[in-house]
Amino acid sequence: MIVRGEIVTLAKSDSGSTSGRTDVTGTTLDDYTGRYAQRIQGMTASEIRALFAVASRPEVVSFAGGAPYTAGLPIDAVGEMLNELMARRGVSALQYGIGQGEEQLREQICSVMALEGIDASCGASPDDVVVTTGGQQALDLIARVFLDPGDVVFAEGPTYVGALGVFQAAQAEVVHVAMDDQGLIPEALEEAITTVARSGRQAKFLYTVPTFQNPAGVTLSEQRRERVLEICQRAGLLVVEDNPYGLFRYEGEPLRALRARVREGVIYVGTFSKTFSPGVRVGWVLAPHAVREKLVLVNEAQILCPSPFSQAVVSAYLSTMPWQEHLKGFRELYRERRDTMLESLASLMPAGTRWTRPEGGLFIWVTLPPGLHSKAMLPRAINARVAYVPGTGFYADGSGTDTMRLSYCLPPPERIREGVRRLASVMEQEMSVRAVFGAPAERGDTVGRPSVDTPAPGVA
Amino acid sequence: MIVRGEIVTLAKSDSGSTSGRTDVTGTTLDDYTGRYAQRIQGMTASEIRALFAVASRPEVVSFAGGAPYTAGLPIDAVGEMLNELMARRGVSALQYGIGQGEEQLREQICSVMALEGIDASCGASPDDVVVTTGGQQALDLIARVFLDPGDVVFAEGPTYVGALGVFQAAQAEVVHVAMDDQGLIPEALEEAITTVARSGRQAKFLYTVPTFQNPAGVTLSEQRRERVLEICQRAGLLVVEDNPYGLFRYEGEPLRALRARVREGVIYVGTFSKTFSPGVRVGWVLAPHAVREKLVLVNEAQILCPSPFSQAVVSAYLSTMPWQEHLKGFRELYRERRDTMLESLASLMPAGTRWTRPEGGLFIWVTLPPGLHSKAMLPRAINARVAYVPGTGFYADGSGTDTMRLSYCLPPPERIREGVRRLASVMEQEMSVRAVFGAPAERGDTVGRPSVDTPAPGVA
Repeated sequence: MIVRGEIVTLAKSDSGSTSGRTDVTGTTLDDYTGRYAQRIQGMTASEIRALFAVASRPEVVSFAGGAPYTAGLPIDAVGEMLNELMARRGVSALQYGIGQGEEQLREQICSVMALEGIDASCGASPDDVVVTTGGQQALDLIARVFLDPGDVVFAEGPTYVGALGVFQAAQAEVVHVAMDDQGLIPEALEEAITTVARSGRQAKFLYTVPTFQNPAGVTLSEQRRERVLEICQRAGLLVVEDNPYGLFRYEGEPLRALRARVREGVIYVGTFSKTFSPGVRVGWVLAPHAVREKLVLVNEAQILCPSPFSQAVVSAYLSTMPWQEHLKGFRELYRERRDTMLESLASLMPAGTRWTRPEGGLFIWVTLPPGLHSKAMLPRAINARVAYVPGTGFYADGSGTDTMRLSYCLPPPERIREGVRRLASVMEQEMSVRAVFGAPAERGDTVGRPSVDTPAPGVA
Repeated sequence: MIVRGEIVTLAKSDSGSTSGRTDVTGTTLDDYTGRYAQRIQGMTASEIRALFAVASRPEVVSFAGGAPYTAGLPIDAVGEMLNELMARRGVSALQYGIGQGEEQLREQICSVMALEGIDASCGASPDDVVVTTGGQQALDLIARVFLDPGDVVFAEGPTYVGALGVFQAAQAEVVHVAMDDQGLIPEALEEAITTVARSGRQAKFLYTVPTFQNPAGVTLSEQRRERVLEICQRAGLLVVEDNPYGLFRYEGEPLRALRARVREGVIYVGTFSKTFSPGVRVGWVLAPHAVREKLVLVNEAQILCPSPFSQAVVSAYLSTMPWQEHLKGFRELYRERRDTMLESLASLMPAGTRWTRPEGGLFIWVTLPPGLHSKAMLPRAINARVAYVPGTGFYADGSGTDTMRLSYCLPPPERIREGVRRLASVMEQEMSVRAVFGAPAERGDTVGRPSVDTPAPGVA
């Protein structure tokens, strides 16, 4: 931390004078340490962030971000749409709204969810939707409603880094459940339930990204969807289904969302961050009525109401623009980039490297050859002008040292090829260094809190 | 709660079958009661909300809302501005941003704060600003950083209802400090500090709205500003200064913000909700560097980043529009409405009624003649087509039964006169009823949680 002036403490002093108020030129050391809430203790910014600041330079091929390709949007048409929106309903869009979110948008959200099988036949209703400040706030609201310190949450291992941040801030304990190429392993879930029950506790919910998982890129199979729901229903375990990528399928048959299969027991989280824009920060929760009421109260306590302006923009986008055509365009774009990355990996990666083959979404999960350490290697990779997110960020328990997440949605194909080439070269160098000198010194320095290993929010 | 279908429980069952999944037509009773976090227990929607739904009908003169007069904005020009914004930087405005908020806006925020004396001379810097989803989220982030369950917070009595909601959600204990026409009473603050210290505890901070306070409309005098800061510095008590209305002064000399007087010990909260638009949900915190770092981490865990789109809109508004001219127009408009309300109160209120005389801001605080009860009277008032917020909503301890908050910012002057006439008439009827029958039955039904007595978020 840079200290730009002398230290002025808040400590008790005998004089009540105001002298000394103006004799420093900046802010001070952390005099507040003793005052922070428990949930904040030890929460510090990551040293890795500085690396990612470098990674955003144009000469670096970044596979780190999870940001969608907003340059693919018809920006001029959006500008015209905004102008019309103001003329039509500017005064109300600029005013306060309600904590649950605007009714028109909640109806449109139901139409969007219906594309993945979540409709009136399974009890989905605009009245049970809460609009949020992106999917992230949806997770935070759910945590506020359900989690006390020490509560257990099940999540895939690896899992979405932003969810880990939420659970950490809620002082909850994350128990990871293993995945394979078919997604969450039902037997592993059963085992986790049994283990937690044996310790006299019960998890509050299972957090899952069943479709094109972030970060693993795998999808829960049809058979397992039914099986996982059965296990959860039998155990009385709530499911929080996070589905930001469901509409980005590039091959294979669409699978109905978990929420489409059951009327109760699943809280569903969606977002417009990938289908339209992360910058407007509009997401939602579909929850059982009683839970929805709590979510609204917590939402009001947190932000009064989701932005009526952003909501009006999303509403206008959905109702006046051919958004499903845009989506089709994005799917084609991302499919090409995924194919390029898969081909590049196949032709360039050193022997012993493994990776997932996503049918959709934005991410590929890479497991490095034995002995390589993705976080230790990151500075060398960025030096070689390629960036990724080390796998440890996606685990609450320090696992994942030999893994990394690659995102293919932003760089164009030729850059993807070049980036994978650079990455392969860095890995090969690391392997030779290791062959001569053994494990790198950074090896021991790896078990950390998840939120410090990632460059939020760009990795969302 | 409306139950539209039969109840499907999440309880353990022996069969793993999926039967029963489709035989209901809506959502269910609250099967989740046992699962909620402690902070949620007993948090329920207010019965009073239904009344406020009626109060929003056009025939009702509403003094309840704290919403600014957005119809006074040059909506067409804003529309054109948005169109240009997209052309200029649409792709980045629609993309993810950073957790702290955009640098350009943080610099503009510093210019706005400088209008109230908060500038480089007291160490204010864009680097110590965190952009938030309105002032409400700023308060929530501060609570997340500082408050553990059971912690004590000092706040004026009455205080901002949204702050009470935040402190309640943080399971903190609010200790009210009395005000008079000069604002917070320093001796009362000293006494509160002593009392809490005697119980072996220490308050985490003093939450205060020193200028044109919401809901009381009073302003902390020049002399008391220095005195309150001295008391807090001596006691090692942090100050959270919330200043949404400072730029809305209609008479008298501007007083520098508390933060303008000290370099440390004050966390400052601002918002564009009153100066531009509540619909974009953009506010900020100016905090000591160490605290600012924590606020950013908590902000990222909660929403990843404040909306880059909303931030770009506010930036464009500040840089391309004559916003200080607009502000002048709003000041003239609100001053006329304040004057009208003060005149109407003076000529129409029954004897024994008292009220504050705000030099700025949006609110007048009314104390009813002995025996009248503002919450009990509300249904009759709304029936007579006038609405206000009962005073109990602004206290954490059930005080304020004989008080109410009146807002004059939305109704035009002739409606204000008519509304006060209706209110006076309802009060007179109540007084005659009381003279004959004694205190109303509802009298005992008044000590409640603050968040249930108010129609959030419109009352912000």
